[in-house]
Amino acid sequence: MHIRLINPNTTPAMTERMGACATRVAAPGTRIRAVQPADGPVSIEGHFDEALAAVGVLDEIRRGEEEGRNGGAGVDAYVIACFGDPGLLAARELTAAPVIGIAEAAFHLATLISTRFSVVTTLGRTVVIAEHLLRAYGFEHHCRKVRAAEIPVLDLEEDADGAFACIAAECRRARDEDGAGAIVLGCGGMADLVDRLRAETGIPVVEGVGAAVKLAEALHGLGLGTSKHGDLAFPRAKAYAGRFSYFGA
Amino acid sequence: MHIRLINPNTTPAMTERMGACATRVAAPGTRIRAVQPADGPVSIEGHFDEALAAVGVLDEIRRGEEEGRNGGAGVDAYVIACFGDPGLLAARELTAAPVIGIAEAAFHLATLISTRFSVVTTLGRTVVIAEHLLRAYGFEHHCRKVRAAEIPVLDLEEDADGAFACIAAECRRARDEDGAGAIVLGCGGMADLVDRLRAETGIPVVEGVGAAVKLAEALHGLGLGTSKHGDLAFPRAKAYAGRFSYFGA
Amino acid sequence: MHIRLINPNTTPAMTERMGACATRVAAPGTRIRAVQPADGPVSIEGHFDEALAAVGVLDEIRRGEEEGRNGGAGVDAYVIACFGDPGLLAARELTAAPVIGIAEAAFHLATLISTRFSVVTTLGRTVVIAEHLLRAYGFEHHCRKVRAAEIPVLDLEEDADGAFACIAAECRRARDEDGAGAIVLGCGGMADLVDRLRAETGIPVVEGVGAAVKLAEALHGLGLGTSKHGDLAFPRAKAYAGRFSYFGA
Amino acid sequence: MHIRLINPNTTPAMTERMGACATRVAAPGTRIRAVQPADGPVSIEGHFDEALAAVGVLDEIRRGEEEGRNGGAGVDAYVIACFGDPGLLAARELTAAPVIGIAEAAFHLATLISTRFSVVTTLGRTVVIAEHLLRAYGFEHHCRKVRAAEIPVLDLEEDADGAFACIAAECRRARDEDGAGAIVLGCGGMADLVDRLRAETGIPVVEGVGAAVKLAEALHGLGLGTSKHGDLAFPRAKAYAGRFSYFGA
Amino acid sequence: MHIRLINPNTTPAMTERMGACATRVAAPGTRIRAVQPADGPVSIEGHFDEALAAVGVLDEIRRGEEEGRNGGAGVDAYVIACFGDPGLLAARELTAAPVIGIAEAAFHLATLISTRFSVVTTLGRTVVIAEHLLRAYGFEHHCRKVRAAEIPVLDLEEDADGAFACIAAECRRARDEDGAGAIVLGCGGMADLVDRLRAETGIPVVEGVGAAVKLAEALHGLGLGTSKHGDLAFPRAKAYAGRFSYFGA
Amino acid sequence: MHIRLINPNTTPAMTERMGACATRVAAPGTRIRAVQPADGPVSIEGHFDEALAAVGVLDEIRRGEEEGRNGGAGVDAYVIACFGDPGLLAARELTAAPVIGIAEAAFHLATLISTRFSVVTTLGRTVVIAEHLLRAYGFEHHCRKVRAAEIPVLDLEEDADGAFACIAAECRRARDEDGAGAIVLGCGGMADLVDRLRAETGIPVVEGVGAAVKLAEALHGLGLGTSKHGDLAFPRAKAYAGRFSYFGA
Repeated sequence: MHIRLINPNTTPAMTERMGACATRVAAPGTRIRAVQPADGPVSIEGHFDEALAAVGVLDEIRRGEEEGRNGGAGVDAYVIACFGDPGLLAARELTAAPVIGIAEAAFHLATLISTRFSVVTTLGRTVVIAEHLLRAYGFEHHCRKVRAAEIPVLDLEEDADGAFACIAAECRRARDEDGAGAIVLGCGGMADLVDRLRAETGIPVVEGVGAAVKLAEALHGLGLGTSKHGDLAFPRAKAYAGRFSYFGA
Repeated sequence: MHIRLINPNTTPAMTERMGACATRVAAPGTRIRAVQPADGPVSIEGHFDEALAAVGVLDEIRRGEEEGRNGGAGVDAYVIACFGDPGLLAARELTAAPVIGIAEAAFHLATLISTRFSVVTTLGRTVVIAEHLLRAYGFEHHCRKVRAAEIPVLDLEEDADGAFACIAAECRRARDEDGAGAIVLGCGGMADLVDRLRAETGIPVVEGVGAAVKLAEALHGLGLGTSKHGDLAFPRAKAYAGRFSYFGA
Repeated sequence: MHIRLINPNTTPAMTERMGACATRVAAPGTRIRAVQPADGPVSIEGHFDEALAAVGVLDEIRRGEEEGRNGGAGVDAYVIACFGDPGLLAARELTAAPVIGIAEAAFHLATLISTRFSVVTTLGRTVVIAEHLLRAYGFEHHCRKVRAAEIPVLDLEEDADGAFACIAAECRRARDEDGAGAIVLGCGGMADLVDRLRAETGIPVVEGVGAAVKLAEALHGLGLGTSKHGDLAFPRAKAYAGRFSYFGA
Repeated sequence: MHIRLINPNTTPAMTERMGACATRVAAPGTRIRAVQPADGPVSIEGHFDEALAAVGVLDEIRRGEEEGRNGGAGVDAYVIACFGDPGLLAARELTAAPVIGIAEAAFHLATLISTRFSVVTTLGRTVVIAEHLLRAYGFEHHCRKVRAAEIPVLDLEEDADGAFACIAAECRRARDEDGAGAIVLGCGGMADLVDRLRAETGIPVVEGVGAAVKLAEALHGLGLGTSKHGDLAFPRAKAYAGRFSYFGA
Repeated sequence: MHIRLINPNTTPAMTERMGACATRVAAPGTRIRAVQPADGPVSIEGHFDEALAAVGVLDEIRRGEEEGRNGGAGVDAYVIACFGDPGLLAARELTAAPVIGIAEAAFHLATLISTRFSVVTTLGRTVVIAEHLLRAYGFEHHCRKVRAAEIPVLDLEEDADGAFACIAAECRRARDEDGAGAIVLGCGGMADLVDRLRAETGIPVVEGVGAAVKLAEALHGLGLGTSKHGDLAFPRAKAYAGRFSYFGA
Repeated sequence: MHIRLINPNTTPAMTERMGACATRVAAPGTRIRAVQPADGPVSIEGHFDEALAAVGVLDEIRRGEEEGRNGGAGVDAYVIACFGDPGLLAARELTAAPVIGIAEAAFHLATLISTRFSVVTTLGRTVVIAEHLLRAYGFEHHCRKVRAAEIPVLDLEEDADGAFACIAAECRRARDEDGAGAIVLGCGGMADLVDRLRAETGIPVVEGVGAAVKLAEALHGLGLGTSKHGDLAFPRAKAYAGRFSYFGA
């Protein structure tokens, strides 16, 4: 199958790194194509960044769908690789393929292997975003606490060692103070830390990029795609003004 | 005070009509400026339309803030005049002024005059959007039911009489079958139906455009604006790629 | 418009002080009349005080309605100026005008300018009362914590400086430890501290007296009053025994 | 033990009838004294009636406590025999004895014998009151539906046969349409219908007067009374103005 | 009446001790028969122990029902005396008599005498079990915290003094740090500590064995038993394979 | 990988059929071994059946773990193939491998492809079981309704055509009356109906056996297993009496 992994931010190094993580866990028959939009924030650290990034996500879904229609390799599933799951429901309207966000993916899998998990995210200002998602998805009672390591997203690129130390410290607190049975990493950029953090903490650490890839494979394997009945049906045909006119009927 | 009323869709007739509704209820000292983005959907009828419309909202917030900085009439509050409150939290990051969505506004006021209300919205596919908002805002227990009149948004412009009849019928059902004490109209385009619907049903009918204007006046009158501590602080300075570069540092 | 601000306790100094706060924020056309019942507790610090105070509230609603019927200045809206919102739903039955409690008012406005707030109240024994209201109104997920400064209500009159210091300290903790984006003051008697506390904390501080006045103006401006359909309809005509006979048919 | 059964309304026939029901189920060593306040509504059919009735409840609690202090038969537990549980938490502040409301009592017992129950109450305008209690107490998920037979409370006295037919019809609907495993009767005045309704429906029917008596016996038998630590501690000593001065310090 | 008190574990000393506690609080006409299954864990300290213990509970319910059918003393109510309420709903299917778990019993009574309680249980690994029950039963908002004294269940037998000290310390923390108005003891084996802990803390301490006995008496006194309409009806007649064949039709 | 698919009931035809369904969707490298306990109900249609079936599940987990220890093919993941997920948390204590219930699996996947689903189950008496799980897992807000086709489980074997007609009718109602975007089949025995029901309804139909297999593969592919920190740690070493002694230390 063909999974289009969309990094909603525009930092190529992160796209590449998340693509590598995805490829590492993908099943033999799965091909990962990691892409990023041309337009949008270099990192996503708040509601505003997410709103802009959502458009980039939609552009990449549209591109994926068009490639299929144009005789290219059709996309079998999409992954939105930012922990806020920006544009998730909007993206689902654009395709009959599954679309999986990495936050939801990590939450789902974490509840299958523990009764209580904690989230370790980057900046304090994104804690509320994770809390909103937990509640919207139904996982608020499974989560002990959302913890911030107070690391800007791009420090994961630029100060990898310092970032790791802070994240590992929060993970240990999650285990010892929250009594969490598992940890969910709250940023796509942490995807390649998962092995070291498992070694560090001795408990399961779930990161969303891999989780989303495996859930996409799962749905594809079952012949399941996004429902086209109800609010996730394809958008109604209509005009879009100005620079969004290419989305129009 | 100066309220910038943002119609998130790009249909001028709706902008005008909502602007007129807003002006009608505004306090003597309140000036309403109704605007619409250059880019985006002509009507908003789903998650996808909302995601695109959010960018238009952010553009209009940015424009409002710039006008103030450039010696123009500073904006004292913003209203997002689409019932899905697209881009609400993102918009709040961009300004220290209050930003009010018309869905939240209508819900808040409806709970002050009734213990149970029902929502009457346009298309069935937007019911889930309203339900998501009710739950996110905390009003799910105050709402008996979200009802769809199955009218496309632009029919409110083009087939006003037919639309009114359908909406009035749902409002009566809300009162009689749901036992709703009040009705919330689930689309900014219904703003000018409120008087006729009150006459028709004999119970309070709340529409969000007016509600948002009055809440904006309320906050302004108390010297309250969007908190800049935490997740609603101004966005971190960073680069935005491509066509969103103008948002960048 | 004419707002009858009801102080549910019987301490004239508080009535006066809250009346002054209300007047300060009222719109030009709004006339505030601050009243207090003849009967009831000198301060409200628990469920018992609230139950008695509710009767005083109902007496003042009744008086307001009668004045209107007798050719006096009709009351356009009522404010119940005690943070427990005593007698709120009962009061709404007695009038078609809006009735706003200061706790609900403060909660509503706080959610419009922040995603998370904390409450700072007087005595620890009232924490549960605030928690009950948060849950009943739907705001439990928006509130990080209800904090008590452990100050008896009347100390706000008698030891203003000491009280301010304790309250300010709790407000700082709410900001720093809870990560609250805004603070709700949990007692009508704190209404005149709001400016100093904003200066002290640098974040929005919401007090309910002003909030309720502005919400009353908002509803009045929209022609909205208490629903008379359902549980808030006027009480059924019946006899009331003994000292409550004047409420009877 | 000595249970003071407080009918919060002022209709002696209901006091008597509920007293008889209580006596019928009381344990051998339990003495029931059914009382009613001198002041208040003849029937309780809304928030307003409840607010006034709460004062009558508090008067009767106070009288019970005083009798004990004056060498009379101390009261071991109180029952508040109106389905809205008026004044419940306030009443608990006034005594270290248990105080049980008949709504809570019926809900508690219904969950012990079924996984889903429905409530059958009198007038539609009291449905919201029952829903509020279910949510406040934590039983909203155990209740399928609150149904109104649309019978005024005093019709239970005056048109017993007509009332019974309506109530029985709603009980059958609760069993057949809601799939309720048990029925909770939503009015103290229905207490003596319980046997006939069990026969009629073939499923458990719970009425609160008996339920509250048995719960009072249960707590008394365990040496448990109202906690005096926290919000249910005795009211702080203070002055009460006017006609409530007798409650003062 | 005849209550069959089922200790779901197989430690006779605990059966005896809980039986004694039950007898101490039972009403004059109540006969307690404390039993334990032949098969199962010696103590219950996790989900696995509970799943096995549930079968023992069902065996004891079946035995109780058979004794009645065979002319023995019919059982009027059952108590499941382990704080996880193992097998509760399954047990209810097997009988028309009431079946009460000690966790639910303690929670129910604690909410009648306080607005907030904390639970003090044995091992940290059982905290999640108590939290699951609180949420399933509807009491999550009444509980401040579930605290573990980190004592294995059998230490209550073998190191009574050490265990008491740890439990008392947690109870004091519940009162002082959580602001709990009452304490629920989270293990049947703590039943005989209740008096000393009340003396130690000065607030109500609720243990489930006594609570369940009194609730069983309450239901019996009202003629209420487990609903046989819906999911708690007797099991459908069918074959059970292997060592469970004796349950079969 | 090696998945041990445990049919908790003792009907070989169902084991075989579910095993075939599992094999059909399994990835190339996945080997399914479908087993059933020697002891337990021939079908699972209530709380009682589930409690007994849980022991069979635990036996099969234990057997799987032993085979691995004895040099046999170690089990990489377990599936519990009954829609009530009997013994799920208990089973997780016994192994470090993932254990997936088919109800949770179906719920998880349904939320990834729709915003609202309905469940179609067998008998009305199991509706409450599904509702309990939805709430415990956090999916209550994603589910519109749990519908019963009123078919005994074994009719799926014995009257396949009649059963299919009833189930299909309920699925259509779920789509048309509930507005469900997807359907979850509420019984493992329906696993092989999924293709026909998709064709019949035109919307996604999710059945748990396949869903659980794919989730097991997903977790395994990520190196994730059941957390051994906290309540899911291996059971404490202790004695088990009687016929359960083989579980003991």
